[in-house]
Amino acid sequence: MVPPQFRRIAVLGLGLIGGSVLQALARGGYRVIGYDPSPNEAALARGAGYRLADSAAEAVAGAYLVVLAMPLPALPAALTEIRSALDPAAVVTDVGTLKTPVLPLVAELLPGCRFVGGHPLAGTERSGFLASDPMLFRDAPWSLVLEPETDLAAWLAVTVLLCDLGARPVPTTAAEQDAAEARVIGLPHLLAEALALTGLHGGELGLSLAAGSYTSGSRVARTRPELVATWCDGNPALLGALDDAIAWLASTREALARGESVLPLATAGHHARMDWERREFGPVDLPADPDELRQHGRDGGWITAVIEKDGPAIGELRLLGMRPL
Amino acid sequence: MVPPQFRRIAVLGLGLIGGSVLQALARGGYRVIGYDPSPNEAALARGAGYRLADSAAEAVAGAYLVVLAMPLPALPAALTEIRSALDPAAVVTDVGTLKTPVLPLVAELLPGCRFVGGHPLAGTERSGFLASDPMLFRDAPWSLVLEPETDLAAWLAVTVLLCDLGARPVPTTAAEQDAAEARVIGLPHLLAEALALTGLHGGELGLSLAAGSYTSGSRVARTRPELVATWCDGNPALLGALDDAIAWLASTREALARGESVLPLATAGHHARMDWERREFGPVDLPADPDELRQHGRDGGWITAVIEKDGPAIGELRLLGMRPL
Repeated sequence: MVPPQFRRIAVLGLGLIGGSVLQALARGGYRVIGYDPSPNEAALARGAGYRLADSAAEAVAGAYLVVLAMPLPALPAALTEIRSALDPAAVVTDVGTLKTPVLPLVAELLPGCRFVGGHPLAGTERSGFLASDPMLFRDAPWSLVLEPETDLAAWLAVTVLLCDLGARPVPTTAAEQDAAEARVIGLPHLLAEALALTGLHGGELGLSLAAGSYTSGSRVARTRPELVATWCDGNPALLGALDDAIAWLASTREALARGESVLPLATAGHHARMDWERREFGPVDLPADPDELRQHGRDGGWITAVIEKDGPAIGELRLLGMRPL
Repeated sequence: MVPPQFRRIAVLGLGLIGGSVLQALARGGYRVIGYDPSPNEAALARGAGYRLADSAAEAVAGAYLVVLAMPLPALPAALTEIRSALDPAAVVTDVGTLKTPVLPLVAELLPGCRFVGGHPLAGTERSGFLASDPMLFRDAPWSLVLEPETDLAAWLAVTVLLCDLGARPVPTTAAEQDAAEARVIGLPHLLAEALALTGLHGGELGLSLAAGSYTSGSRVARTRPELVATWCDGNPALLGALDDAIAWLASTREALARGESVLPLATAGHHARMDWERREFGPVDLPADPDELRQHGRDGGWITAVIEKDGPAIGELRLLGMRPL
């Protein structure tokens, strides 16, 4: 056993998200060590003054919490690599977009691991350690998977950490988070790609006239396509999201062809966006009860703090949160 | 005749675009007078220190150049209102998005008018005088319609003015500009509306998880729907643009349903966006010849200055510009 004063948080993968987690934790006063298999990213993080390990196994040795921040395709190798060095009591969390594929992978490769799947909704279209930012998670929603089999104490430990980072932990299940992700990550990326591609198919004049609405609409097409694929491929909920968007576009196309207006779509889209911006929230407090917490997330709520009511036992904790009014 | 030292530019309509034109011209040292039928917008412009007329007719009296900056549906009434007060030699330009519907309207209501249709590609999703900005047109493309029947001297006068505002005048025809507009204004707005609307149809959890890609992808759904309709309705080129986008989305949906990847769309979209960002330009100089100028616009070029070569006659002018390499 490593003595408590030497225990630390390990962040594996120091790209945009992992690099931002590393920096945010360090600023929050946490003892943190990073690792990235790319010598370039590792050198950038080391040059910025962070402590780095030479291997994933070295990083996780003595860590009480491990943040897996590599892309989904690199996850199996990383899980295998840390297996023997990981403290059996350590809590492991990840930051990947899709949560459904991760749970069976962890169960297979790290059986018995205290795993809590997470997903910060805080990317930008840039990538790499140089794009990372310790303030990236300020007020950002962060899905935190609370399945019936999730270790509640581990889930609460990650929740407290995310609150410290300024994020908004949202209790959810892998299936519910992936269904929501299809509409607010997958679909926006596919629409941006379609715009980037077909919006410009009008010749050089169109290229030179493209301005504000093209620029913001296609912004996330700057993301590496391989990353977009890991956020979309294999998510069945994306089919329904695409169907809905295609149906609106097709009916609007038919209206235009008949000499009618785009107003039905424009009005409905405008109201959806403005209603979303204008949502209001109020405080709530909740017991550390998985069913109530999941319902809170389903209702659009998030956690702002974990506090002791009568003592530090889980049954004595209260979670403060915000929810839509 | 009003003596030359009292001659001025009139800007009718002081919303986002008209208000920005008014401010940019005033900063550029032009004598300028504004008018807006809304007492609220007029009071805001007057309060900001600008000279305002009490009617459109009063504003255009003595103006050598008139900028029509009202939405398309308000244009016929404005043309009728200024008819008798307009100096027959005055140049009239507009800033509406679609150019094809404007030309016959002006020919009918202001026969013989020296009209030059224009369209700054510089909106934001905000509107009204308070959203206006004298720097809005800096480096912004600005379509300037040069039809065979356009008065070339009038076209050159507006071009010089736009160069003074820091904009990039693009010589084009109404039909060519509207075809390009379908892809870089109409399509981005319809995709943003479809995202705003259907992206959120997954319940409260999705509303709370929506972040960066949803926010930027649906940004222009904040625009008033009536404005979006004036930019889309009646533009036949929008049908082909929608067909292209729908075809990509539908084929990607089918690929996902077969268990395949979104990578073909993501890769093509990414390359389109990055190639567009990375275009390079070089200088060119051109004679004041309508055919050559239209071809320059068709090739993705714009004008940066109008200079005298041997004298001030049109045949002695040269236009400096930039074009893609």
